[in-house]
Amino acid sequence: MSTGVWLIGARGSVAVTSMIGALAIRSGLAPPTGCVLESPDLRDRILPGIGDLVFGGHDITGLPLDKKAAALAEAGVVPAALVRAVHDELLAIDQDIRPLPTTKPSEPGTRSQAETVEAIRADLDLFRHRHDLGQIIVINVSTTEPAPPSHPAHHDLETLRTALTGPDPVLPPSALAAYAALVAGCPYVDFTPSTGARLPALDALARERRLPYAGHDGKTGETLVKSVLAPMFAQRNLKVRTWSGVNLLGGGDGANLAQPGANAAKAASKQRVLAETLGYAPQGETRIDYLEDLGDFKTAWDLVTFEGFLGTAMRMEFTWHGCDSALAAPLVLDLARLTAAAHRAGRTGPLTELAFFFKDPLGQVPHALADQWQALRTLVETLTHTPSPARLDDGPA
Amino acid sequence: MSTGVWLIGARGSVAVTSMIGALAIRSGLAPPTGCVLESPDLRDRILPGIGDLVFGGHDITGLPLDKKAAALAEAGVVPAALVRAVHDELLAIDQDIRPLPTTKPSEPGTRSQAETVEAIRADLDLFRHRHDLGQIIVINVSTTEPAPPSHPAHHDLETLRTALTGPDPVLPPSALAAYAALVAGCPYVDFTPSTGARLPALDALARERRLPYAGHDGKTGETLVKSVLAPMFAQRNLKVRTWSGVNLLGGGDGANLAQPGANAAKAASKQRVLAETLGYAPQGETRIDYLEDLGDFKTAWDLVTFEGFLGTAMRMEFTWHGCDSALAAPLVLDLARLTAAAHRAGRTGPLTELAFFFKDPLGQVPHALADQWQALRTLVETLTHTPSPARLDDGPA
Amino acid sequence: MSTGVWLIGARGSVAVTSMIGALAIRSGLAPPTGCVLESPDLRDRILPGIGDLVFGGHDITGLPLDKKAAALAEAGVVPAALVRAVHDELLAIDQDIRPLPTTKPSEPGTRSQAETVEAIRADLDLFRHRHDLGQIIVINVSTTEPAPPSHPAHHDLETLRTALTGPDPVLPPSALAAYAALVAGCPYVDFTPSTGARLPALDALARERRLPYAGHDGKTGETLVKSVLAPMFAQRNLKVRTWSGVNLLGGGDGANLAQPGANAAKAASKQRVLAETLGYAPQGETRIDYLEDLGDFKTAWDLVTFEGFLGTAMRMEFTWHGCDSALAAPLVLDLARLTAAAHRAGRTGPLTELAFFFKDPLGQVPHALADQWQALRTLVETLTHTPSPARLDDGPA
Amino acid sequence: MSTGVWLIGARGSVAVTSMIGALAIRSGLAPPTGCVLESPDLRDRILPGIGDLVFGGHDITGLPLDKKAAALAEAGVVPAALVRAVHDELLAIDQDIRPLPTTKPSEPGTRSQAETVEAIRADLDLFRHRHDLGQIIVINVSTTEPAPPSHPAHHDLETLRTALTGPDPVLPPSALAAYAALVAGCPYVDFTPSTGARLPALDALARERRLPYAGHDGKTGETLVKSVLAPMFAQRNLKVRTWSGVNLLGGGDGANLAQPGANAAKAASKQRVLAETLGYAPQGETRIDYLEDLGDFKTAWDLVTFEGFLGTAMRMEFTWHGCDSALAAPLVLDLARLTAAAHRAGRTGPLTELAFFFKDPLGQVPHALADQWQALRTLVETLTHTPSPARLDDGPA
Ligand SMILES: NC(=O)c1ccc[n+]([C@@H]2O[C@H](COP(=O)([O-])OP(=O)(O)OC[C@H]3O[C@@H](n4cnc5c(N)ncnc54)[C@H](O)[C@@H]3O)[C@@H](O)[C@H]2O)c1
Ligand SMILES: NC(=O)c1ccc[n+]([C@@H]2O[C@H](COP(=O)([O-])OP(=O)(O)OC[C@H]3O[C@@H](n4cnc5c(N)ncnc54)[C@H](O)[C@@H]3O)[C@@H](O)[C@H]2O)c1
Ligand SMILES: NC(=O)c1ccc[n+]([C@@H]2O[C@H](COP(=O)([O-])OP(=O)(O)OC[C@H]3O[C@@H](n4cnc5c(N)ncnc54)[C@H](O)[C@@H]3O)[C@@H](O)[C@H]2O)c1
Ligand SMILES: NC(=O)c1ccc[n+]([C@@H]2O[C@H](COP(=O)([O-])OP(=O)(O)OC[C@H]3O[C@@H](n4cnc5c(N)ncnc54)[C@H](O)[C@@H]3O)[C@@H](O)[C@H]2O)c1
Ligand code: NA
Ligand code: NA
Repeated sequence: MSTGVWLIGARGSVAVTSMIGALAIRSGLAPPTGCVLESPDLRDRILPGIGDLVFGGHDITGLPLDKKAAALAEAGVVPAALVRAVHDELLAIDQDIRPLPTTKPSEPGTRSQAETVEAIRADLDLFRHRHDLGQIIVINVSTTEPAPPSHPAHHDLETLRTALTGPDPVLPPSALAAYAALVAGCPYVDFTPSTGARLPALDALARERRLPYAGHDGKTGETLVKSVLAPMFAQRNLKVRTWSGVNLLGGGDGANLAQPGANAAKAASKQRVLAETLGYAPQGETRIDYLEDLGDFKTAWDLVTFEGFLGTAMRMEFTWHGCDSALAAPLVLDLARLTAAAHRAGRTGPLTELAFFFKDPLGQVPHALADQWQALRTLVETLTHTPSPARLDDGPA
Repeated sequence: MSTGVWLIGARGSVAVTSMIGALAIRSGLAPPTGCVLESPDLRDRILPGIGDLVFGGHDITGLPLDKKAAALAEAGVVPAALVRAVHDELLAIDQDIRPLPTTKPSEPGTRSQAETVEAIRADLDLFRHRHDLGQIIVINVSTTEPAPPSHPAHHDLETLRTALTGPDPVLPPSALAAYAALVAGCPYVDFTPSTGARLPALDALARERRLPYAGHDGKTGETLVKSVLAPMFAQRNLKVRTWSGVNLLGGGDGANLAQPGANAAKAASKQRVLAETLGYAPQGETRIDYLEDLGDFKTAWDLVTFEGFLGTAMRMEFTWHGCDSALAAPLVLDLARLTAAAHRAGRTGPLTELAFFFKDPLGQVPHALADQWQALRTLVETLTHTPSPARLDDGPA
Repeated sequence: MSTGVWLIGARGSVAVTSMIGALAIRSGLAPPTGCVLESPDLRDRILPGIGDLVFGGHDITGLPLDKKAAALAEAGVVPAALVRAVHDELLAIDQDIRPLPTTKPSEPGTRSQAETVEAIRADLDLFRHRHDLGQIIVINVSTTEPAPPSHPAHHDLETLRTALTGPDPVLPPSALAAYAALVAGCPYVDFTPSTGARLPALDALARERRLPYAGHDGKTGETLVKSVLAPMFAQRNLKVRTWSGVNLLGGGDGANLAQPGANAAKAASKQRVLAETLGYAPQGETRIDYLEDLGDFKTAWDLVTFEGFLGTAMRMEFTWHGCDSALAAPLVLDLARLTAAAHRAGRTGPLTELAFFFKDPLGQVPHALADQWQALRTLVETLTHTPSPARLDDGPA
Repeated sequence: MSTGVWLIGARGSVAVTSMIGALAIRSGLAPPTGCVLESPDLRDRILPGIGDLVFGGHDITGLPLDKKAAALAEAGVVPAALVRAVHDELLAIDQDIRPLPTTKPSEPGTRSQAETVEAIRADLDLFRHRHDLGQIIVINVSTTEPAPPSHPAHHDLETLRTALTGPDPVLPPSALAAYAALVAGCPYVDFTPSTGARLPALDALARERRLPYAGHDGKTGETLVKSVLAPMFAQRNLKVRTWSGVNLLGGGDGANLAQPGANAAKAASKQRVLAETLGYAPQGETRIDYLEDLGDFKTAWDLVTFEGFLGTAMRMEFTWHGCDSALAAPLVLDLARLTAAAHRAGRTGPLTELAFFFKDPLGQVPHALADQWQALRTLVETLTHTPSPARLDDGPA
């Protein structure tokens, strides 16, 4: 049985790197480096495999996938030879990427968000039928949104259902996509810091439809490092006085994060791990600065000052120089597979055991990477022997 | 019941910082920052407490403790005000520090190592009686030795007993101290990379005397960081290509480590964590360079290059600027307490659950810090409710 | 003949570190490390010497100098032993520090800025007479001001004279101090990025009174490093693509720079060297973040990405960890001496040869440190043999 | 008139990058980034231009240039597109690269070094005639040699002439090449730390033949940075306490420098700038470690600790991540042109004004980059208007 992976933001860097990688790995052209489910500890445990994934998605741009792939190769994100090797398969995927149905309140005679939901759902159904898919996992890898204003409908599913039929948009795009995914019977994963399914009304919807969801904000760089260093300081009972970071990045994501709204969402998401693992919030902030010239590579620098025995002042600094899309893409494949397996196993509601993958994980979960790793291993263990594909057909309403 | 802490190298930086700290903490003059057993998770679980420890030891130098303490204050390792506050108590400890009994094979009419063992044992007995101690933990914090040549007596306890009575030294000083400690009924901890109790004959002796022992080489800086970063790369299935480090340090330990023999012992001990946690050894070495001017502070720099999805090359570097003695001293207090509690609980042989504290831990144990932390927590849990002081008197032969 | 040094902000960190240092150096208790005029190349050339300087000043706080000195010792800026050694002399200086006369437009019956000028001048005259000073150099080391709104009186001396007598303040405090200094016959130096004498009307005043002035913004850390690295890239014809920096600092100056107005003034001042020495402005900004806990020490991190032969991408990063007050104080002594010698030699108007000392130097001058060093050496050469103390009495109107 | 550039080590990374670059620049395919003579300040001053250079050389390997070029593209040193564009011209150069004539003392009936000299000279003459060259500049960019044992013939030209005819080799390869170049009337430049022309006997030969020579050891990375930072500390009268560096590099040069002999030569060459510009040698060393995996890119890290006003301890560290061949190649082009112009202008003996380009420059010259830049500018000024091509034919004996 194949699993569909419906990417919102399917023409973006993370999405296209994921596709190129999946195609290359299944053809044996590249090893699955960076894929957590392919590490020696977890290999061959989770179904679907990378080879079972079928890609499609929504985007607001029409840039063809091969053009985006060429740009990624030019930028050093993926090898040019791989892009050439998977060219035809990429173009085939392009057929399954559709323009995002949207609600434009400013235009006269525009449709309601409920109508947009139906349009998204129609695209998902078409995708399912074209490829005879047993399940579809919807993953948001589109541009980060600013946090939306609060709305009463966010807190109650019935109120939300009614509000969606009205003339005013009530959900931000990521949450509307989550809503549409759930009503279409698809688990939803948010790889961005956007709202997604993180609203009480959507949680209720997921439970009603017996679907799992996951998020938020893929943990790929500086925060990943923090999630192992902060527990180290805590376990050694060293007192962290300040922790400051700066992230210099280019790329499409960088340009967007240079906007104050998106930046604030991300920066908050990035410091949370400190308070959670240390038990207190040290002084300092995380800055995100956009430098177009850096392209898809990011350089982050962190300074940690801490106090040891008898008050002795000490310090550590680190520089992380990573390719964000290359770090994110294999996690997208992992998340697709894990969420699919959880879905097959009948899991519903938030998949809190996936905290390992996220900066701002759902639920009251540990933020230390090692604890998250344990939770992930346990989940993999559980899912390894409990596939129940029969359940999957029940999902869609 | 008080617990003696007999420090080999009792006039060195680590030893004296431990003493000043224990005195300051028990008087409420300083918080127990850096003491793992005083972290929120583990607090108030392990007896003896810091206030129950009584210090003594051996050294080959006669530098008075107050002079050493003043030098440590001058160097910024401990606050001058604390040194003043504990001055009289330090001088009291000075009474319990005795010159190391030694074997000088080159001198005519010199004693055998067996006689030296008796002399060390006599010093330990005196210490026990002077302070009416229920138990004594012997901890090696003296200068790192070069690795000794192998000797058949290292592998068999009976052979060793005989060999010790001969004219030629058969054990290096750290192992002779371990031998003497064990025959005196004292658990032994090696905070240095020296041989200590790490010989089959000494393991047999510890089991015969029903005593625990621990080691090797306190994990206080660069290796500590490695023990959280390397698992992070492994868990994320990122391929570490190179890992190179340089340690620039001054102080007495630095001067000694500038000697090729000691340096080699330490450098090997420092890279082991990589192979153990990654499952392969990346290219690169750890260098230790002596810079007198850096004093008791150490700066370590590490460069890690790694490969991600589809071969993308990435890198991270970190600089650690720490005060070695301030990092080591609280661990010495922790180890004294934990070994004492294990002794009270009747534990014998290697305390492998103390791997958290060591660069080169005993036994087939995990090298990832998080796993070591779990092992430590479990040990603390076990020891919390099983004090059996009655057992302690059985120990000494 | 003694030279007065009148410090605006005389109770601040830079001011008090300068005083402690001058007292310690003249007593032979400390070497003149950091004093440019005491380097092997320039030693014994410029009169007055450090021993000829007499300190006084204005401040808005009344914190006694010995209290401030103790705080500086506590913070590790100056050795506690030196503070003890110069304690009495510091208290003597305290007698010459007076509350800043101010204009409070909001209070009824308040004086005009012209009256404040007279009050400042009276304080300077009193200082001159108390110590029988041949000259007084006024140096602004007070809190950085936000840039003031532009005003027509800034551009014309006569308009300014009239405007000062009116009820509304027309000059920001630093410029009012500069005005008062010049009418009192005193050369003026601005060590801060504040306006100071940098207005056409004040330049005219300085020329009218035949007095020199200097500024702006002492160059003590990251910008100093930039002023040697940027020329290196230019001379090697390497193309700098991005240059980003972050400054993490505590202390009083840090708290003030955390205010947007002051921060903007400083950040702009810090990037100017790049455009000036490279001939183009690379992408990137300099951030200043306040971290109270860092105290008087500052950590700056810069990332430079550059392009070499055939477009190869390369990078360099540096971390600077300095004590701002300790870097600034010796320059204050140098500037006092050089400005005094220039005054004695009859120099009037902007001392552009002092660009070596400033982030944002006066005039069309080179920004490469090496060129500024040449200019300084030439100035020292010129001043070495041209003392003409007779001229000094002509100055004051 | 064309100028020949005869590269010893013509199939190495630096050599081939120089050739690719010269071909690309003259065809307008790449800008002359990194070429000092093409910077805005010095552009269009020196003849020959890059387009006037004709390449040939010696090597001990037969690897075709296009294979080496492909490897450089693969390693990210040069763009693959450029390599394709200059492919045919590279193959043409290949015709002018000949196996190095050598002396093999261990083989019976082997020739003397004098005979090898004649063989080298014959190759140079052939090159001259094939391309009708007005002059040939010989540049050593071959593998660094260990320092040779001292020999009396090194100090006297006549003794050397005699010794060369004997059966035992008396000159290391780099010096033999210099000797052959000079007797063939060719100026000689050593871009490596090897001996080259740096022997009294060879200096005498150069003067006898009225030829200029230059060296030693291209300054491309960490030492370049040192040559601007060390003067900064000196000018600010800050006391550098320690300066330690580590260079991690792969590539052919890295593999060779991992050999103790070559490593020592290079490491010494790298610290010289400190003593020369500071006036004293701070503690610390420069390490060179070979990490095959790093390829042609090098990462250097330096830690500088320094003392400021009243003894305050401060520190700076930098990381340099550069592509050595890409940094070296444009300098090779600059050196060829400058030496050719000096030759045309009748300059003989060491070209000390080229210190800007070298880690270990000839003569008693300044080591601060800014001073070297001034010397270079003055030389360019001098050479701009004094071409005297007539002199060139006098050279060869
Ligand atoms: N790369 C990482 O390491 C990482 C880590 C965590 C989170 N993220 C998040 O992943 C997301 C994608 O990052 P990226 O680098 O691929 O960015 P990108 O700019 O390359 O791609 C985003 C794509 O989303 C599309 N898009 C924008 N609005 C949309 C909408 N409303 N519906 C559908 N598509 C829309 C854009 O047209 C674009 O193709 C970002 O939100 C980023 O913050 C990335
Ligand atoms: N500080 C750390 O972070 C750390 C971490 C791991 C291991 N260690 C090890 O701890 C040890 C102590 O370090 P330190 O900084 O205190 O060194 P130190 O040089 O200050 O002190 C060592 C003391 O041991 C004494 N000594 C030497 N040989 C002796 C012998 N045979 N018997 C008894 N005493 C002897 C010396 O006289 C000295 O007083 C070293 O071996 C070091 O490698 C330290
Ligand atoms: N330390 C450096 O490296 C450095 C470099 C360049 C510029 N500066 C500038 O030097 C100045 C002083 O720095 P600091 O670290 O000593 O700061 P600080 O906060 O310790 O001292 C400033 C002093 O100025 C006083 N003050 C405030 N407003 C005043 C006014 N209107 N008139 C008179 N006094 C006033 C304050 O009460 C305080 O005592 C700042 O403007 C700073 O930006 C410092
Ligand atoms: N790249 C830089 O930044 C830089 C800076 C300063 C000095 N250098 C020096 O430049 C030299 C070349 O560096 P590279 O990276 O091109 O090295 P490389 O190993 O790529 O090339 C060296 C070439 O010299 C050839 N060779 C070896 N012995 C020879 C001999 N006796 N005669 C003729 N050819 C010989 C080798 O076969 C090889 O082709 C090295 O000595 C290096 O130390 C390089
Ligand atoms: Na760094
Ligand atoms: Na760093």
